[in-house]
Amino acid sequence: MQNYRAIAVSKKAQQWAKIPKAWRLPTERFQDANNVMNIPLTCGLLNGTEASITSDYDATALLGQLKAGVWSVEEVTIAFCKRAAIAQQLTNCLTEIFFDDAIERAKKLDLKYHANSGGKALPPLFGLPISLKDSFQVRGYDTSTGLGCYVGEPAEDNSALAAMLLDLGAVLYCKTNLPQSIMTGDSDNNVFGRTLNPRNKLLTAGGSTGGEGALLALRGSVLGVGTDIGGSIRVPSVCNGVYGFRPSVGLVPHGGVRDLTPPGTDGVHSTAGPLSTSLRDCSLFLKSILQADTWKHDSTSISVPWIDLEPRHKLRIGVALNDGVYTPSPPVRRGLKQAVDLLRGNNDIQLIPINLPDVKSHCQDHISYMTLLGSDKKHYYEQFARTSEPVVRSLKAIGLLSVPGTTLQGFFDLNVRRAEAAKTYLKLFRDNDLDAILMPPAPHTAVPLDCWTTATYTGLWNYLDYPAIVIPVDQVRDIDSADDLSNAKFGADDEQLYSLCRDHFFPNQIRPRLTHASIDTGPEQYKDAPVSVQIVGYKHKDEALIKAAAVLDSIINKI
Amino acid sequence: MQNYRAIAVSKKAQQWAKIPKAWRLPTERFQDANNVMNIPLTCGLLNGTEASITSDYDATALLGQLKAGVWSVEEVTIAFCKRAAIAQQLTNCLTEIFFDDAIERAKKLDLKYHANSGGKALPPLFGLPISLKDSFQVRGYDTSTGLGCYVGEPAEDNSALAAMLLDLGAVLYCKTNLPQSIMTGDSDNNVFGRTLNPRNKLLTAGGSTGGEGALLALRGSVLGVGTDIGGSIRVPSVCNGVYGFRPSVGLVPHGGVRDLTPPGTDGVHSTAGPLSTSLRDCSLFLKSILQADTWKHDSTSISVPWIDLEPRHKLRIGVALNDGVYTPSPPVRRGLKQAVDLLRGNNDIQLIPINLPDVKSHCQDHISYMTLLGSDKKHYYEQFARTSEPVVRSLKAIGLLSVPGTTLQGFFDLNVRRAEAAKTYLKLFRDNDLDAILMPPAPHTAVPLDCWTTATYTGLWNYLDYPAIVIPVDQVRDIDSADDLSNAKFGADDEQLYSLCRDHFFPNQIRPRLTHASIDTGPEQYKDAPVSVQIVGYKHKDEALIKAAAVLDSIINKI
Repeated sequence: MQNYRAIAVSKKAQQWAKIPKAWRLPTERFQDANNVMNIPLTCGLLNGTEASITSDYDATALLGQLKAGVWSVEEVTIAFCKRAAIAQQLTNCLTEIFFDDAIERAKKLDLKYHANSGGKALPPLFGLPISLKDSFQVRGYDTSTGLGCYVGEPAEDNSALAAMLLDLGAVLYCKTNLPQSIMTGDSDNNVFGRTLNPRNKLLTAGGSTGGEGALLALRGSVLGVGTDIGGSIRVPSVCNGVYGFRPSVGLVPHGGVRDLTPPGTDGVHSTAGPLSTSLRDCSLFLKSILQADTWKHDSTSISVPWIDLEPRHKLRIGVALNDGVYTPSPPVRRGLKQAVDLLRGNNDIQLIPINLPDVKSHCQDHISYMTLLGSDKKHYYEQFARTSEPVVRSLKAIGLLSVPGTTLQGFFDLNVRRAEAAKTYLKLFRDNDLDAILMPPAPHTAVPLDCWTTATYTGLWNYLDYPAIVIPVDQVRDIDSADDLSNAKFGADDEQLYSLCRDHFFPNQIRPRLTHASIDTGPEQYKDAPVSVQIVGYKHKDEALIKAAAVLDSIINKI
Repeated sequence: MQNYRAIAVSKKAQQWAKIPKAWRLPTERFQDANNVMNIPLTCGLLNGTEASITSDYDATALLGQLKAGVWSVEEVTIAFCKRAAIAQQLTNCLTEIFFDDAIERAKKLDLKYHANSGGKALPPLFGLPISLKDSFQVRGYDTSTGLGCYVGEPAEDNSALAAMLLDLGAVLYCKTNLPQSIMTGDSDNNVFGRTLNPRNKLLTAGGSTGGEGALLALRGSVLGVGTDIGGSIRVPSVCNGVYGFRPSVGLVPHGGVRDLTPPGTDGVHSTAGPLSTSLRDCSLFLKSILQADTWKHDSTSISVPWIDLEPRHKLRIGVALNDGVYTPSPPVRRGLKQAVDLLRGNNDIQLIPINLPDVKSHCQDHISYMTLLGSDKKHYYEQFARTSEPVVRSLKAIGLLSVPGTTLQGFFDLNVRRAEAAKTYLKLFRDNDLDAILMPPAPHTAVPLDCWTTATYTGLWNYLDYPAIVIPVDQVRDIDSADDLSNAKFGADDEQLYSLCRDHFFPNQIRPRLTHASIDTGPEQYKDAPVSVQIVGYKHKDEALIKAAAVLDSIINKI
């Protein structure tokens, strides 16, 4: 097999060739900017209609316009292909690019349903452009997942979800970047390189669905699909200020996704879910999928039907200020407090303070589940070795490659402990009669490159298989000053992580006296980083969660 | 710990003391009869009302009468306690007896809802007596599962299902017998002894939910709950001529069931489901449970809501004449043919001949899943050794105690193979657009004691986790003559099993010339054995299966 460098050079060239010359940006215009969020609209590549199509609508509204025939599918598809091309040039967020196929399909959809209609019923996702994480197989394109060894092996079949989305009338036009191993909080690999955070290049775009996060932030897509086994949908949602929904395992078809874990592995499973620019788009996605007989597309799916339920009149929301393992940084605390204050002022919401029991040990077991056979040599390294590719920095940083494996009895022991945890958390929901839990999605906002090393806030819910949604609520502000390390009360690991945020608040290592009174230095490194909250529901009650989250979102974000 | 013999003697004495003197049968009246089905009504213990209450209604109709106040809950409870006491004396079908508690509860229900009503809404299962397999914990009573080592340890809590049924208004009054290990087709153990088949003592009552089967057949219960990991609901349903429904795993709460498998075991799971005297009672059970927030009671449950769906107008039913491993015996073939002929004559049914792929290897893997850690020494034997109890004959016969264990990698390999099988069977359903599969529930009817050694017809669906229902259609008749061994086409194992039936048809070993023309000897040994069919649905589509099965049952049994 070729060396990974040669593979990467040729793959990148192929990728570049997929972007029409007329859609290419003069790089000198933006390459020094840390924040590139305004460039899609200022670069001059999008005409007025394209700018409006891609800027002014969420997927739900866009679908309405498409179905009403305000724009043709072709117009909408070209607008998003163009904007995705811009996003790619700004943040390196794409892997496979198939704009040409997408436009071809768009024309056919226009022809079939509009030009030559005869009143044909429109499919549920008629003409809606949807982007997919690279790990979803799309026929005719690689599913390299950023590994050299899988480049140049076009998929023979669509993954179950890609097939479903096409059946539902969607237009697929690109796949997006992810980390080597699909396991880290930085979407960086040896084939495609690193995806940058469009709000601040000094911060990670998140992972493992980081390409989607950056693409959505720049509105090169309004609806993307990622996967999440420890936070891989929610972490990039946090980093990029978009909505991200991790459904219960099996509800959204996951068949035909390359997830790099050993075949037949069990215990915790990756789950597929949407990233979007509105809460109702997560709902649109889930509803469209659940109403469409997932079982027919994927033998691994769990058919929980969408039942159009109404949220309870007075929602009971548990509030967890932290996970008892890592102390949230000042902007995260402020974001949660803002949300809590707004909810407290609403008569339809009842807030119940709760603590999350034993998160640390549960998350240790979660990591054990993800590395049952041991991750030290066999699996990942073998794949890397085929093209002599090195381990990327973020993968080294999380230490996932040195976790020892276990035995069948060890696996059973993990199951026993998790069954106990499931009882405890059910009791938490039941005894407090909760509709959902409101909490931080992470102990920090987007962090500097290759520094996202923890997943307790997200991973707990993968361990228990509870659905969870990330909702952006604000961004880092000057008032979010770093404060005393003594705020980190959960031990040495907590202190170390807390200082990561603090030290980067003061990048020159000039530490002010660490008392609240004396701190007024602004969070320079974290400029423009989004601040989000996480809302968690009970296992398999995904529709109930989304309905409750919509109520909370409408209050918190005054929608 | 005491020797099992002493434990058994004292337990049986305790059990006997729980049957009021007035409800005891003069044993000389029936002890020589092979078929005791008519004794409950001829023994003189039931008065006219009790006879009617226990004979003339299924659970659905009985519930209607209870809700209408035709009889008090107390009257109904006493009637079923009495008839269960009779069934116990005839077939040894009970383990824990709590008639007194049940009657006490019945009085309270009467008081709460009728005598002193004020228009309180009646709970869904108001006053309905329900029997449970011994493995369901009921507070205050042993969950010995027939093992000496667990006798005398009353449960501190109700199992999730027992708690739910009580919440729903049901009356629990007894638990029922099962085999040592809960894994065989004969409900025989060293504490309670063997449950007899009330239709024919020479035949097994089935297992592992054999106590329920015999109790239901004698109408000492109209709704019982068992568990099924390889056929344990369906086998006794076949043996006793009752309806039995194996739901998909997790739909009916299974928490707090003692199933004797090693803690934390995974791969295949036991599932809880009903045995009943009508198809609609299986539906009543599932609907009542699924409408009642199973998740609140059991952290292991999968919340698939009941959605009151309508069966498709023209049902498409796949017909599998055999499983490709064992040839059905003549009465089983005839029963299926009768059903097929009736369905073929109906315009609302479309029959599609199908073959079931690779059943043999799937069922080998199914057994591997059930014995992941190896069953040769550690687990079962350790439990038996505590009271020096011997292995019962049926457990020796099935060979389960000598299966070697596997490794974590071996477990993953099983998962990979099953994922492939799941794809194949999904394709079978999808390509044929099937609503359900009609097939035999076993290659034979009830067999002589300790001879039920195969589970391919039932176990395949545990392996794939598809819901399956047994429907009684007829009984063995004189026309079901044994025929030539050459009918057994699937190899040596098939021939051997086929000859079990044939040889017992001719118990004196006088073999007539084995050509169709010359055979007219009747099936003496199998006299009165019920003949049933099995209807199988797709995973998690339990409601759809039950609705389809109701249509088929109405045609096959002309209901």
